[in-house]
Amino acid sequence: MGLLVLLLLLLAFLMPGVAIPVPPALRALSNLHLSTKFTSRPSAVTKYSKYSIHYLKQKVDHFGFKNDKHFNQRYLIADQHWKKEGGSILFYTGNEGDIIWFCNNTGFMWDVAEELKAMLVFAEHRYYGQSLPFGANSFKDSRHMNFLTSEQALADFAELIKHLKKTIPAAKNQPFIAVGGSYGGMLAAWFRMKYPHMVVGALAASAPIWQFEDMVPCGVFMEIVTADFRRSSPNCSKSIRKSWDAIHRLTRNSTGLNLVSEALHLCTSLKNSQDVQHLKDWIAETWVNLAMVDYPYESNFLQPLPAWPIKVVCQHFKNPNVSDTELLQNIFSALNVYYNYSGQAKCLNMSETSTSSLGSMGWSYQACTEIVMPFCTNGIDDMFEPHAWDLKDFSNDCYRQWGVKPRPTWITTMYGGKNISSHSNIIFSNGDLDPWSGGGVTKNITDTLVAINIAEGAHHLDLRANNAFDPMSVLLARSMEVRHMKKWIRDFYASLTKKH
Amino acid sequence: MGLLVLLLLLLAFLMPGVAIPVPPALRALSNLHLSTKFTSRPSAVTKYSKYSIHYLKQKVDHFGFKNDKHFNQRYLIADQHWKKEGGSILFYTGNEGDIIWFCNNTGFMWDVAEELKAMLVFAEHRYYGQSLPFGANSFKDSRHMNFLTSEQALADFAELIKHLKKTIPAAKNQPFIAVGGSYGGMLAAWFRMKYPHMVVGALAASAPIWQFEDMVPCGVFMEIVTADFRRSSPNCSKSIRKSWDAIHRLTRNSTGLNLVSEALHLCTSLKNSQDVQHLKDWIAETWVNLAMVDYPYESNFLQPLPAWPIKVVCQHFKNPNVSDTELLQNIFSALNVYYNYSGQAKCLNMSETSTSSLGSMGWSYQACTEIVMPFCTNGIDDMFEPHAWDLKDFSNDCYRQWGVKPRPTWITTMYGGKNISSHSNIIFSNGDLDPWSGGGVTKNITDTLVAINIAEGAHHLDLRANNAFDPMSVLLARSMEVRHMKKWIRDFYASLTKKH
Repeated sequence: MGLLVLLLLLLAFLMPGVAIPVPPALRALSNLHLSTKFTSRPSAVTKYSKYSIHYLKQKVDHFGFKNDKHFNQRYLIADQHWKKEGGSILFYTGNEGDIIWFCNNTGFMWDVAEELKAMLVFAEHRYYGQSLPFGANSFKDSRHMNFLTSEQALADFAELIKHLKKTIPAAKNQPFIAVGGSYGGMLAAWFRMKYPHMVVGALAASAPIWQFEDMVPCGVFMEIVTADFRRSSPNCSKSIRKSWDAIHRLTRNSTGLNLVSEALHLCTSLKNSQDVQHLKDWIAETWVNLAMVDYPYESNFLQPLPAWPIKVVCQHFKNPNVSDTELLQNIFSALNVYYNYSGQAKCLNMSETSTSSLGSMGWSYQACTEIVMPFCTNGIDDMFEPHAWDLKDFSNDCYRQWGVKPRPTWITTMYGGKNISSHSNIIFSNGDLDPWSGGGVTKNITDTLVAINIAEGAHHLDLRANNAFDPMSVLLARSMEVRHMKKWIRDFYASLTKKH
Repeated sequence: MGLLVLLLLLLAFLMPGVAIPVPPALRALSNLHLSTKFTSRPSAVTKYSKYSIHYLKQKVDHFGFKNDKHFNQRYLIADQHWKKEGGSILFYTGNEGDIIWFCNNTGFMWDVAEELKAMLVFAEHRYYGQSLPFGANSFKDSRHMNFLTSEQALADFAELIKHLKKTIPAAKNQPFIAVGGSYGGMLAAWFRMKYPHMVVGALAASAPIWQFEDMVPCGVFMEIVTADFRRSSPNCSKSIRKSWDAIHRLTRNSTGLNLVSEALHLCTSLKNSQDVQHLKDWIAETWVNLAMVDYPYESNFLQPLPAWPIKVVCQHFKNPNVSDTELLQNIFSALNVYYNYSGQAKCLNMSETSTSSLGSMGWSYQACTEIVMPFCTNGIDDMFEPHAWDLKDFSNDCYRQWGVKPRPTWITTMYGGKNISSHSNIIFSNGDLDPWSGGGVTKNITDTLVAINIAEGAHHLDLRANNAFDPMSVLLARSMEVRHMKKWIRDFYASLTKKH
């Protein structure tokens, strides 16, 4: 697995519901999603659909005065439970996707709205969904992409909050709280850091704000993926580690290529070593994917998935001491859990390209500019083939793709890296099962910069709607989150009283 | 006095040592300076000249990736008193002028260097001095000016601090403290707010961070100017208030125009009512100027000035019940204090244009984009002719001049306006005599956002070098400032120890 491939693959995991960027070599990885559209609570769909859609005219460039162009930022409002007296406003800091998708998939906000007397606002991130600064031309070239940065997005949020306070009188003197998950969680935390006058606090769920430069070891992400499989059974990760060489051995000649293609029921047969690399990437992607969505209940993720899917997958890797062909057969069975849980698939399609989505363009650009996250594997602490992080290669590839060069140290300069203790009122929640927790804040920094770790949690499980199968750890996490929010709200009203 | 004229005039006061923007109608105001080059301590020149000059390659645009141009930011280092063990770094956040000028005129930093074991760093603000993003083309048009914003300047400072920590090993684990006066004080405060991971605190001297939108009454600035004159004698401000009508009455015909020109010893005779308006603006400018530099010792400001110059000026306005011609004579005597203290001037030159300075271009642009400060007079609470604040007029003028439109609410969106209590470790110092104190923070916000008011202080007197004639209030202010800084430094080292 080429490191760049792996890297782009991993980055794409931050982006739920939309496809990853697809450089030629990555076609097979292009179905990557981080979806959490659970079908187990169909009633929720109705519950979450009661929002109104709005648009705010935003400056394309908040940080310069020459460009006086504007675009419409989309945002959603749900105020069924909002109280004009003593209420609050939960403000979802939209990330790299369609805001309606986030609105429908952040059940936590809907579940706590009544208790917090809260209006819910979901703000779409520029360059995603319908919030395109230059319409269809938004992704045309680096000139049009130039205004896709986290700073511009945060400024959009700030202007939106000002607009809401101005146009909704009762909102003027109510506390806003930022909420976000994954990259949206990073934005929620950064928003509180940079605009503490706009929000009294932030819930940053599964936000890997330290997955930059050398703040965490570049291998930590894949180590956690590996640990998730090892937790099910040590033989599981051991088998997967062995599988790369097995595949290599089995695909030395055309007979082998055919054999492997047939054993895995691939829709398109392997033709050469490049295809084999592609296959490995695709399989690795699947394991990573499973680690992120290793949720405790059945979910419908691209294909339907069983509860605790890693456990189900690992059923097929009980014995690591099998022949290469047996191991191959086990891989097929494991892949089948992920790609064919419904039993409808005629073959496994590793080269199916993704739904063309503007969102993927945007994220690929962001990953090539600001959001530069180093990843690596060593094959010892993780179950993958070893690959070092090579910034130069990465940079060159970005330049080829976008005509821009990444600035890997900028995020730390801008947002403080590990030196953030002077801020306040941010909850960093992480699931222990989530590979992104490796780049997250998992220890309290101060009394008001708190870490909440969810032992049985995958990627921002806490932001999902309540579910009968939720483990105690996520229930506890949500309850602590609400307690913090209530305190922020109380403090806000107390300071308001003091002023008057 | 046209309001726009007044406004531009006032804005220019933020800019020490360089000329104000000169739209055609403002030629006579173009000598406006806020200099504090005191000649009373010639020895200081030697003391302050021991710095080394450096340049850091900075990105022209920190907030986008398309423009990959760079420029050299100039900065100065003085490390005579710096201690590698237990030391600190005072970081001057340069404002709208040549950094060497600030270095030579911020005696406070030099005076406390030894006590704080401090390295002194003076960072030049982009588009001023030698730090020109596009060299001679920097002010060519709005496209070249586009990167002149406070946000870009703060990002320069952040990159510079990173660079210093990287290249000066002993600086890596030392606390940086931001120091600035006037607009530089605003930058120091904003820098601590936006980059608290870069500086442990900020001394924001005479920083009118609230002179925006409607955070303070638009008339407060001119009321303070008036109060300064009234303090010397109520008849003084009364006489000045009467003088505008007197000038109007005296200049109704050509005989009158000549009479006034001669009485005031103007180098160029008044020709028409436009010249008369010009004269009034120029005189008003003088009173404002005096209020800002009403220092307790002789200083050399454009022309040499006596100690407490307003007191000297007001000697000539003892009796408000005089004829128009007598009043005119008194105005001449008063103007003479300011423009001819040395007794060398043959005539008073109100139309002398300013030294052409790039700095003035930059500040005029900033005042027309981000730094939009509303001013007004009513002739009742102040001694000036009444003028309302008219944003539309202002905006149109900016568009004519720069091809850009001001965003008067942006600074508040960005930096929080009055809602800044979640920040920490900022000293806001203000002189009661300084008209800018009206837009400053003059009451403690929290235990760590403190206001220090200097009863006998004009514009950032506390940042000036020690002087035998310093009033007790400024000595006390400086001592409190040092006490706060020492606490920040102590806290920094304590937290460092805790980490290890």
